[in-house]
Amino acid sequence: MNLKDYIAKVEDYPEEGVTFRDITPLMANGEAFHYATEQIVEYARSLKVDLVAGPEARGFIIGCPVAYALEIGFVPVRKPNKLPRETVEVNYDLEYGSNTLTMHKDAVKPGQRVLIIDDLLATGGTIKATIDLIEALGGVVAGCAFLIELEDLKGKEQLAGYEYKTLMTY
Amino acid sequence: MNLKDYIAKVEDYPEEGVTFRDITPLMANGEAFHYATEQIVEYARSLKVDLVAGPEARGFIIGCPVAYALEIGFVPVRKPNKLPRETVEVNYDLEYGSNTLTMHKDAVKPGQRVLIIDDLLATGGTIKATIDLIEALGGVVAGCAFLIELEDLKGKEQLAGYEYKTLMTY
Repeated sequence: MNLKDYIAKVEDYPEEGVTFRDITPLMANGEAFHYATEQIVEYARSLKVDLVAGPEARGFIIGCPVAYALEIGFVPVRKPNKLPRETVEVNYDLEYGSNTLTMHKDAVKPGQRVLIIDDLLATGGTIKATIDLIEALGGVVAGCAFLIELEDLKGKEQLAGYEYKTLMTY
Repeated sequence: MNLKDYIAKVEDYPEEGVTFRDITPLMANGEAFHYATEQIVEYARSLKVDLVAGPEARGFIIGCPVAYALEIGFVPVRKPNKLPRETVEVNYDLEYGSNTLTMHKDAVKPGQRVLIIDDLLATGGTIKATIDLIEALGGVVAGCAFLIELEDLKGKEQLAGYEYKTLMTY
């Protein structure tokens, strides 16, 4: 199956000159969604992970099925004020401005092997912040998995020294 | 398995006097997450659904694994300006202010049987808005499924005439 057949190309979104890769047709197709998820399930098996973590909201889309398939837990990485109990947080810079991500303090136990899953590897800022949170809690980042990598944005430079897998590159 | 053993009770969140039911311990426990998801997978089988829809972000948490397990598609219901292609939208009132939800115009095909999944049935505003979107696209709402129903908030009144299932009530 060629997963790229299920990615819609949207020109000038979110702003002029940018080409957005829309995964919703892939998600809407049961066969393609299952196939893509299975690829990451197999990758997770090879890494012997204990837990899946995913940044909101699109990290939940593949991350939760992978956790379900492996009968392991899923930990959400969220924007501020979304998690009700005590959190750790990390701030990171965006092209314009900055962003903050949070996790519950008890979300990862020391030594747990965590697979981070998101839809897209772009500049890598979100993933680096997620790695920092997991490591601050004593977790081990076993690897990262993405549906799509936008190679020009060089996100993989943020992942130096970490295992990662991408199903599609543009 | 008693799923309530995995729900954290958080007092005075998001505001004083409110008791928040936190599902993150359930998600973090592989056995509990899998068991809860399976209950909704069985419900979906009984309804013969073609597609799962879930409102962001917590609707993705159970909705995506259910779609994966059944090898059917998942359609995200999102806040404005999150979906890149042409959308339909619906506005609905909250206790203070209002909210808008959107779906891609091609997300549901006429006649498709859709199961709506969210973590929580509270006042029912989000679910009613999601029903309206699906029906505006010609879809059939086969049913709704929730991890938790807060009975005092009477969300089920918004679901009159629709099938629904809840795994836990408070």
